[in-house]
Amino acid sequence: MRTVNVALGSRSYEIRIGPRLLRGLGKACAGLELGKRCAIISDTNVASRYAKPVSQALEQSGFEPTLLTVPAGETAKSLKTVGFCFDRLSQQRLERKSFIVALGGGVVGDLAGFVAATYLRGIPFIQVPTTLLAQVDSSVGGKVGVNLKAGKNLVGSFYQPRLVVCDLDTLNSLPEREYRSGMAEVIKYGIIYDDALFRKLERRLARLMNREQATLADVIARCCEIKAEIVGKDETESGPRALLNFGHTIGHSLEAISNYGKYLHGEAISIGQVAAAYLSNQLTGLSENEVNRIKRLLEGAGLPTELQLTAGQQAKLLQAMQLDKKVSGGEIKFVLARRIGQAEYGHRVPAAALETTLKRDKPEYHPPV
Amino acid sequence: MRTVNVALGSRSYEIRIGPRLLRGLGKACAGLELGKRCAIISDTNVASRYAKPVSQALEQSGFEPTLLTVPAGETAKSLKTVGFCFDRLSQQRLERKSFIVALGGGVVGDLAGFVAATYLRGIPFIQVPTTLLAQVDSSVGGKVGVNLKAGKNLVGSFYQPRLVVCDLDTLNSLPEREYRSGMAEVIKYGIIYDDALFRKLERRLARLMNREQATLADVIARCCEIKAEIVGKDETESGPRALLNFGHTIGHSLEAISNYGKYLHGEAISIGQVAAAYLSNQLTGLSENEVNRIKRLLEGAGLPTELQLTAGQQAKLLQAMQLDKKVSGGEIKFVLARRIGQAEYGHRVPAAALETTLKRDKPEYHPPV
Repeated sequence: MRTVNVALGSRSYEIRIGPRLLRGLGKACAGLELGKRCAIISDTNVASRYAKPVSQALEQSGFEPTLLTVPAGETAKSLKTVGFCFDRLSQQRLERKSFIVALGGGVVGDLAGFVAATYLRGIPFIQVPTTLLAQVDSSVGGKVGVNLKAGKNLVGSFYQPRLVVCDLDTLNSLPEREYRSGMAEVIKYGIIYDDALFRKLERRLARLMNREQATLADVIARCCEIKAEIVGKDETESGPRALLNFGHTIGHSLEAISNYGKYLHGEAISIGQVAAAYLSNQLTGLSENEVNRIKRLLEGAGLPTELQLTAGQQAKLLQAMQLDKKVSGGEIKFVLARRIGQAEYGHRVPAAALETTLKRDKPEYHPPV
Repeated sequence: MRTVNVALGSRSYEIRIGPRLLRGLGKACAGLELGKRCAIISDTNVASRYAKPVSQALEQSGFEPTLLTVPAGETAKSLKTVGFCFDRLSQQRLERKSFIVALGGGVVGDLAGFVAATYLRGIPFIQVPTTLLAQVDSSVGGKVGVNLKAGKNLVGSFYQPRLVVCDLDTLNSLPEREYRSGMAEVIKYGIIYDDALFRKLERRLARLMNREQATLADVIARCCEIKAEIVGKDETESGPRALLNFGHTIGHSLEAISNYGKYLHGEAISIGQVAAAYLSNQLTGLSENEVNRIKRLLEGAGLPTELQLTAGQQAKLLQAMQLDKKVSGGEIKFVLARRIGQAEYGHRVPAAALETTLKRDKPEYHPPV
């Protein structure tokens, strides 16, 4: 088992990464001074597979878990589902020391985390991410929340879990498309922060795509370290944390205008990262060769990279970007890369550059400026 | 104008108390590094009277306010109204630096504060309390939230305002019953923390009930000081802050079982405080004379103090108490007074003592233990 520390003063916590960790969950929780009563929040897909072993592990350590199952998919990240969870928690008499176990992917983690952040003004919660995307990204760092009709994650809190448990075995049951989607965030860490990681991903892509556990443990731990380092500098996203949004401004908006239906998060982010790479090529000197390496690695992971929109869709996309949380003073700010391994946040992007990028057909049409 | 500082490190803020403060609201906000766009959240009663002057004051300082009006009354403190506000804020393109002005009583402050705490994971907000209860209690200290069917304030956050502006003129338009309700919290500060304040209230009750501004400014400022001092020691209610809940365990439950309809908050709290005084007489040595002074002062302020319940209502009340946020390990904890001006939190109350208190007819039936 590998352990990564997220250092946030009194809100610090551990991320544990390894095979066969679910069975030890009760023991892991027993060290955290929690009440006996707890609620496992999971979705229909994940609960059918893992709710039982997780319940048993908790019961064996003297906890009294109850299971709340929400529908699978992004639509569960809604105020309506939040209300359903609140009603169930109060029926089950969960108190301030009671805790929530978020068992599932990013949707479940974000939803259950927000429920934990606001029920009784905040009760403890444990993240048990079961997807690659959740293990390397959404379960770490304390961003929790739900979507509004107007956009993704427009409601939420900064609220840290007490522990994150990444059981590598749970990745084996992940559908191929979901697994690939997670790779988009893995690759992002290389682009924004760690050239060596990016090169490792290029070299070991085949092993990763085969879900080889030794390579996975190594890569997931490195991604969590990077995220922990960035979050440690800026818990509430007033500065450096924005780096993590590379590819997300366009990605989120793409999800919004397709009603969170067409693309998985990682797929939208993959397209967003390639668009951000083109913008970086125009504005911050990312070389054409690096743009192509980024595109190639994402494609190698089976991810979409091209955005083909009608004029009407383009207008909608630009409108959706205006609602992004990163907008300030009406201005959309972008994270751009200078080179692979080094990104910068807070870049203004001229409307013309954005339009060129959205309309682009092939990379070679856009010489660096 | 009087100013009280709430010292909470980077989350510190000022409470300003005085007449004619609404007209200066724009200038007051101008010093806080806020965005231009803002939303005034108010209710139908308050908005008709004060939304216009507040809007104008903000506009004169270059802000761009939009008005969100919610229904008057406790039922507006619901997830449904929260959802309505979120949708309006996103339609109006409020961003992270945009801010919310909570203009109204405790319901509006709690609701608008929770909306501010969670919209875009938190945007700044300003409290402009227009009731006595909100000026001395709910607008200060950062407890925000809404009700569930199962109980009051079961959902929320700890989220501090950037400024609190108490305009004494707004109290002139307050219906008599609402004004009296606020007096219940004023009297509470005397009981839990300040013998001198309690005696001053006894002496100046007539002036206070006539809403004499000089006396009011004095008393409101002292209440805010006490609250600021207690909150400064314990922002998230892990300890001393519980003192502020004197009378609230029974009070909240009384509101819950009457569906927040029969009693105003202060009325329920008045009954709850007298019950807590009887419990204190039985368990922590509060003298019978002091119990009677507490009862007399609350009655002098025109507040109800007696609880007459059927056996069925009693059972419901006890059940509702079990859901209170202050319950820990299934045990209801009470705040009890040793004497006027000194209270203690975390008292276990034997079921028998609680039943005796709930069934009591007249004070003289309960000799001190």
